[in-house]
Amino acid sequence: MPPAAPRSGDAIFASVERNAELFTLTYGAIVRQLLTDLEEVEEVNKQLDQMGYNIGIRLIDEFLAKSNVSRCVDFKETAEMIAKVGFKMFLGVTASVMNWDADGTCCSIVLEDNPLVDFVELPDTCQGLYYCNILSGVIRGALEMVAMKTEVTWIRDMLRGDDAYELQVKLLKQVPEEYPYKDDE
Amino acid sequence: MPPAAPRSGDAIFASVERNAELFTLTYGAIVRQLLTDLEEVEEVNKQLDQMGYNIGIRLIDEFLAKSNVSRCVDFKETAEMIAKVGFKMFLGVTASVMNWDADGTCCSIVLEDNPLVDFVELPDTCQGLYYCNILSGVIRGALEMVAMKTEVTWIRDMLRGDDAYELQVKLLKQVPEEYPYKDDE
Repeated sequence: MPPAAPRSGDAIFASVERNAELFTLTYGAIVRQLLTDLEEVEEVNKQLDQMGYNIGIRLIDEFLAKSNVSRCVDFKETAEMIAKVGFKMFLGVTASVMNWDADGTCCSIVLEDNPLVDFVELPDTCQGLYYCNILSGVIRGALEMVAMKTEVTWIRDMLRGDDAYELQVKLLKQVPEEYPYKDDE
Repeated sequence: MPPAAPRSGDAIFASVERNAELFTLTYGAIVRQLLTDLEEVEEVNKQLDQMGYNIGIRLIDEFLAKSNVSRCVDFKETAEMIAKVGFKMFLGVTASVMNWDADGTCCSIVLEDNPLVDFVELPDTCQGLYYCNILSGVIRGALEMVAMKTEVTWIRDMLRGDDAYELQVKLLKQVPEEYPYKDDE
């Protein structure tokens, strides 16, 4: 079969998921680096979460600026916004919100597609690793900047053999309106 | 002024540079992590280059698969392909190739726009850091997989006050055609 004609950068650019592979491989490089530098998988989980937190507290500004989302009325709306707008905006996938508890302070965000894990297979030595733990940190950090203290934990993880990625987001404390948040900044 | 109406995830998705901020901030988190873990800036440069190399040797497969680029006839064509197709494909920017030496084995790839450095300001303690050193590693790694040994070094760096990002790519050795490279794999 004759080789297909080369395609220009622009044509390829229009047809591929830009950036995704480089991002995915770069993320993989972080995880590998942490596994090398830190002795315990548990420490790697913590570090990924902390890195995510640091990213989240900055990413929220981009999110608010680009989405034109104004203050959400409650935690339910906030969770929907993360799943439907946030994940789509930054990872190019959509997520579902489910498993609400009775008082509307705890839910799950479920991802069926997760670009972070393309090409990834975990060796047996990495049991206990939450490979995507940066995501839980991002959500926690971003929500803290809009005055919601949360706890974010993995319930399901496809790299551990589950059928989806499920993050439980639990609202611990909502700082009241007088929180010194300046809209103009 | 009344707040603008919220926009759906899809509308935002179509209008923003997807992934770019998360990737940029994630890359920043790596660099910060390395600066914390390693004592010397020079070691951070080395580590970023090594991470890039490890990414490059995998990214080349994605590049070849998605671009339909077949074997380049020479190093000149290869350099153009990296600048015009590779950078566009993975970083969403185009680069220029210039400053060729007389025998066509050394050139510069010049970037005027570099998504890795959005939001970045280096503190004085980071003098000597090549913040984007992962890129030089990616190029070196990718080229090695197509049988070209290269040396890639920064000539200009806007984070150091230069007017562009300029990477010098020097072909050290081209392994001849009988290199055991299997096209089918």
